[in-house]
Amino acid sequence: MTATNDLLNPLRLPPADAKVQVSQCMKTLQDEICQALESLDGTAQFQEDSWSREEGGGGRSRVLKNGGIFEQGGVNFSEVWGKHLPPSIIQQRPEAEGQPFYATGTSMVLHPHSPYLPTVHLNYQYFEAGPVWWFGGGADLTPYYPFAEDAIHFHSTLKASCDKHGEEYYPVFKRWCDEYFYLKHRGETRGVGGIFFDYQDGTAPLYRGNQPDLAAAQYDKQFPTNSVRNWQDLFSLAQSCGRAFLPAYLPIVEKRRSIPYGERERNFQLYRRGRYVEFNLVYDRGTIFGLQTNGRTESILMSLPPLVRWEYGYQPKPNTPEAQLYEIFLKPQDWINWSNSASK
Amino acid sequence: MTATNDLLNPLRLPPADAKVQVSQCMKTLQDEICQALESLDGTAQFQEDSWSREEGGGGRSRVLKNGGIFEQGGVNFSEVWGKHLPPSIIQQRPEAEGQPFYATGTSMVLHPHSPYLPTVHLNYQYFEAGPVWWFGGGADLTPYYPFAEDAIHFHSTLKASCDKHGEEYYPVFKRWCDEYFYLKHRGETRGVGGIFFDYQDGTAPLYRGNQPDLAAAQYDKQFPTNSVRNWQDLFSLAQSCGRAFLPAYLPIVEKRRSIPYGERERNFQLYRRGRYVEFNLVYDRGTIFGLQTNGRTESILMSLPPLVRWEYGYQPKPNTPEAQLYEIFLKPQDWINWSNSASK
Repeated sequence: MTATNDLLNPLRLPPADAKVQVSQCMKTLQDEICQALESLDGTAQFQEDSWSREEGGGGRSRVLKNGGIFEQGGVNFSEVWGKHLPPSIIQQRPEAEGQPFYATGTSMVLHPHSPYLPTVHLNYQYFEAGPVWWFGGGADLTPYYPFAEDAIHFHSTLKASCDKHGEEYYPVFKRWCDEYFYLKHRGETRGVGGIFFDYQDGTAPLYRGNQPDLAAAQYDKQFPTNSVRNWQDLFSLAQSCGRAFLPAYLPIVEKRRSIPYGERERNFQLYRRGRYVEFNLVYDRGTIFGLQTNGRTESILMSLPPLVRWEYGYQPKPNTPEAQLYEIFLKPQDWINWSNSASK
Repeated sequence: MTATNDLLNPLRLPPADAKVQVSQCMKTLQDEICQALESLDGTAQFQEDSWSREEGGGGRSRVLKNGGIFEQGGVNFSEVWGKHLPPSIIQQRPEAEGQPFYATGTSMVLHPHSPYLPTVHLNYQYFEAGPVWWFGGGADLTPYYPFAEDAIHFHSTLKASCDKHGEEYYPVFKRWCDEYFYLKHRGETRGVGGIFFDYQDGTAPLYRGNQPDLAAAQYDKQFPTNSVRNWQDLFSLAQSCGRAFLPAYLPIVEKRRSIPYGERERNFQLYRRGRYVEFNLVYDRGTIFGLQTNGRTESILMSLPPLVRWEYGYQPKPNTPEAQLYEIFLKPQDWINWSNSASK
C-alpha cells in the first residue's frame, strides 16, 4: 500500500506549476482530438459551450452532430475545484479527507453512424487534494460488428504508449479496463476494452479498484513495481496514453468507413447502443457522481447515443457476426497475443 | 412511528392464507389488465415467459410488441421468497432483520406509438418478513403532449379509489409520487404523477420515505391517522388502487388515439422517452435493486422504451405545447383542484 511518508517525500511533490501544466495538456488533447475528428469527418464541426461552476471552475464542452462519419461526438475539457471530495474518493485516498481539491481532465465519447465503426471512449484526469495527487483515465473500444484485427490494433497502440513508461502498466490497466467496463446484469463487457486506471501516484500497487480478488489485482502481484515513479513520470504516462488515442482509433475508421450496411446492421447497432446507456447510467462512476453532485447534466449525458433501441428477449442468431460479437468480443480476451488465443 | 407492540397485536396479523390471497389478486390484476389492453389494442397479443428464481419463487412476464396502439407494453407478475431482505429495506423495516421474506406483486409499463398517448406505469406489491408485513405500490402518468383534462381524470380516478378507504391516503400518496418520480439532475418530475406508497402496514405515519422534510411528510402531519387499520383494510386499499388503473388510463387512450401526428411530435416523444430511461436506470429503486441482486434482467428492463433519442442541449421553443409540458406538466401540480390552480 501507499506509504503516506513516501507521498510526502519532497522529491515526489508535484512541481509548483503542476495544475497549469496538466490543464494546458488536457486542453491541447481536446484541441488535437477535435481537429483530427473534424478533418476525418469532413462535414460537421464541433460546437463549443463554455460553462462555469458555482463552486469553482468550469469547462468547455464540444459537440459534433450529424456529421459525415459521426452521428454524435462529444469532447469535454473541465477544470474544477472545491472544498472537499466525495466519500467515494476519500475511501480510496483517505489522505485527501477534509482537504480542498483540484481536478482537471478531458473526456470523449464518439458514436459513428455506421454499425461497422466502433463507438469509442476516452477520459484522462488529474487530481490534487492536500498532500496527495493522482492521475486516472483510459480509453475503451465498443464495436458492433467484430473485427479481431481492430481490437488488436487498438490494444497494441495503447500498450506501446504504456510500455514506453514501464512494462508493468499495460497488463494491469488492460485487466482493470475489462473489470470496470463490465455489465454485471448482462454478463457482458462493454466492448473489447482497452486500458483503465485510477489513483496513480507513482507507488505500487497499480491496481486501486474495489475488487482485489479480480484479475487486475492478481496481475499486479505478478508484476510488482519496485521503482517508485515521480510526478513527471506519471504525467508523461498520462500524456502518452492520451496522445495514443488518435493513432489507435483513426486507422479503424479509415479501414471500415466504406463498408455498406442495411437495416439489419443498423438495428443491431441501435440495440447494442442500449448497453452503452445501461453502463453509463447504472455503473459509470463519473456519470453517477456528476448527476448526484449537481454537475452540468448536458455535458455529462453527452456520452449517451443519439438514437437507441431496446428489445425484450433479443438473442443473436447462431453463426452470425452478431453471435460472434457476444461469444468472443464481449468477453475479456488477450488481444495482444490474439493469434495464439484464437487457435485455442 | 410504528410501535412494534402494535404490529404484533394478534388483531393486526395477516390471515393464515394471506400470501395466497394477495398473490391470487396480483395474478388477477395482471390478467385483467392484459385482457383489457389486448382488446383495446386490437392487433397485438401479449407473449408470456414463465421464469423461476434459484433462491425461490418465480414469475410470469408478459410483453406485447408493435401493436395497433402500443409500441411496447410489459405486465409482470412475480412471487419470490428468500432468506433475507436487502439492507435498503431493513433500514425502513428493522423488525425484518434476519427474517426470511416473501414478496409478490404486479408491475406494468406501457409505451404507446402515438406521442399524444401518455406512457404509464403501475406497480403493486406485498411483503411479509417475520413479524412484519406491508403493501406498497402506485401508478403514474407520463404525457408527451400536455392535456390538463387527462391529468385531472387520472388523478381523480386514483383519488376516488383511495378515498373509499380513508381520506388521508390520497393527499400523502400524491405528494410522495411527485417526490419519488423526480429527476433531480433535470429538475423535472417524470410526468404528472399519480400515487406512490410503500411500507403501509395500517399504522401512522403514512409517509415512509427517506426525506421527512419533503411535501408528503408535511402533508402527513396535517392529516394524522388516528385509526389503526388492519391487514384486510390495507389489502382492500391496494386492490382498489390496482383496479382503478384501467378506468384511469383507458379513457385517455380512447380520447387521444386518433389525433394525427408527424415527425415533430414523434421526435419529441423519442427525446422525452430518454427521461424515462434516465429515471429508471439512475433512480428507480426496483430497477436498481433488481439489477444488483441478480434479478431477471429482461423482465426488469422491459420498462425501457423500444426507441429512444438523446439530443445535446435541446430546449423547447417558447409558446409551444412542448414548452408547456416543461413549464406546467413537469412540475408538481394540484390536479384535483386544477381549475383553481390554473387561474393563478
